[in-house]
Amino acid sequence: MVPDSNGSKSQLSVIRIVEVGPRDGLQNESDIVSTEVKVSFVDALSESGVAEIEAGSFVSPGAIPQLADSDEVFQKIERQPGVIYSALVPNERGLERARAVAVNKIAVFTAASDSFTRRNINCTISESIKRFRPVVFGAKRDGMTVRGYVSTATHCPFEGAIQPSQVLDVVRQLLDLGVDEISLGDTVGKAAPRDIRRLLDEIVPRVDRSRLSLHVHDTCGMAVANVLTAWTDYRIEAFDTAAGGLGGCPYAPGASGNAATEDVVYALKASGASLAVDERKVIAAASEIGKILNRRLSSRLSQVRTEQTAYEGVT
Amino acid sequence: MVPDSNGSKSQLSVIRIVEVGPRDGLQNESDIVSTEVKVSFVDALSESGVAEIEAGSFVSPGAIPQLADSDEVFQKIERQPGVIYSALVPNERGLERARAVAVNKIAVFTAASDSFTRRNINCTISESIKRFRPVVFGAKRDGMTVRGYVSTATHCPFEGAIQPSQVLDVVRQLLDLGVDEISLGDTVGKAAPRDIRRLLDEIVPRVDRSRLSLHVHDTCGMAVANVLTAWTDYRIEAFDTAAGGLGGCPYAPGASGNAATEDVVYALKASGASLAVDERKVIAAASEIGKILNRRLSSRLSQVRTEQTAYEGVT
Repeated sequence: MVPDSNGSKSQLSVIRIVEVGPRDGLQNESDIVSTEVKVSFVDALSESGVAEIEAGSFVSPGAIPQLADSDEVFQKIERQPGVIYSALVPNERGLERARAVAVNKIAVFTAASDSFTRRNINCTISESIKRFRPVVFGAKRDGMTVRGYVSTATHCPFEGAIQPSQVLDVVRQLLDLGVDEISLGDTVGKAAPRDIRRLLDEIVPRVDRSRLSLHVHDTCGMAVANVLTAWTDYRIEAFDTAAGGLGGCPYAPGASGNAATEDVVYALKASGASLAVDERKVIAAASEIGKILNRRLSSRLSQVRTEQTAYEGVT
Repeated sequence: MVPDSNGSKSQLSVIRIVEVGPRDGLQNESDIVSTEVKVSFVDALSESGVAEIEAGSFVSPGAIPQLADSDEVFQKIERQPGVIYSALVPNERGLERARAVAVNKIAVFTAASDSFTRRNINCTISESIKRFRPVVFGAKRDGMTVRGYVSTATHCPFEGAIQPSQVLDVVRQLLDLGVDEISLGDTVGKAAPRDIRRLLDEIVPRVDRSRLSLHVHDTCGMAVANVLTAWTDYRIEAFDTAAGGLGGCPYAPGASGNAATEDVVYALKASGASLAVDERKVIAAASEIGKILNRRLSSRLSQVRTEQTAYEGVT
């Protein structure tokens, strides 16, 4: 456990929610939704108080048909002041597309396991980082912020448990390249709080916390517990979540998706955190997309059919 | 946080899972399932390694039609050595029925909020405890073990947040009456780990931990985080859970049900706890009942369509 610099648990920190539903969520849904629906979804989320919305991906349209229309989505969304709109960018061609539609922030992506990067992006970790170099340089030159995803930060579907020192090694390479912030991902969703502690015990003392985000999936039902551990014990203040718990896990068919934004927001507020997000607006946005996808959302709060689905404070 | 008597976090404690799916789960499902299905469900759970199965309720059949056949269920189940089979008993008539079918353990039920007991069992807390007196005496005389439920131990749907001192007061009255163990319930499922800490900070220093069980619902997605907090920080070693996350919350229509046995077992094992439960067997039992109820179960692990839904340990 890493205490605050002032030795106490401050109640005043403001958590940043990075809403990844429009990208990581929709990318892992089997149905493809229309551009219009995506734009409405992003616009509704823009009103909810989240700090950032990952609104698309500029990978090859053939690779992820669900997000082939990201250019158009970025052109049509109504951007709110103060909200960051980001997108995945794998290469210089993707960076050109992102630049053409005025993306604020791009994300490059690698992993802490070579077996995973080989299967996911067809190269080793170091090859992936070499590939990112011109992308990161180009983005920084154009004034964009750059996020770096480190997937399989606790478990790899092919290698099993991942050593935190391997993760730190990749994190350092990304930071050396000029990446501004790191998202540590439990891609498979197998981590429990103990695994998150093992990871953060290695990373947090060596990397400025303001540059870290935790990205967890709810495959095994651990997402909320993991987020609370990262916030309560390590003061991590940025979390990647998806409205409604959208998405899935390509390595666990049928699995629940990303940590659900509304459940994470509830959990953090009920734990004393300060957040600008109105979970009722997130639930409303998720509900609309759930109707389109014609499926019950996996988030807990979105299932409750009452008005009492927001954290009401301690009375 | 209450440290262990030896000052460290022992890895050797054995957690007891009190499987309440056949009672608290089915009681809160809108569909009524047949006696045969209930018997198969209990029999399947008997093979899973849970310590106890709450298999029925001897309240008035008119009050809870879902469980009107509890007598027959107890007559038909195949009891496994070492597994405790318990039932809810509200009065002496219920105790007679329990005795007639050789129930091992009965449970009486009250709450920490008068508004709740008035609406739920039509009396005040002290009236409920007076009513239990002959039931508890009769059960003890016949060699049965008695559990006492204290509902609304953190939040009441009518009164809001509940003071831990109110809970302690009720717990003491039950223990004075001769009740052997106490189940502390977050009936509405609004509690976050902070609320569980507030409650256990009051109770654990004053009541032998081996007499306590935590009973949480997953309405707001906090169940796993709450269980882990109770185990990691307070060494609570008994948890009431329902296979598949069966059930709901009468005060939050549509809500998720009890903490899901398989998700809780995964979480505890992945946190270093020792458990005899095979979550794959729980998932199989839940899957059968899910088919009968014709609904998707809310537990996370039961949604994953792979063989990799059990905790595999850290490799």
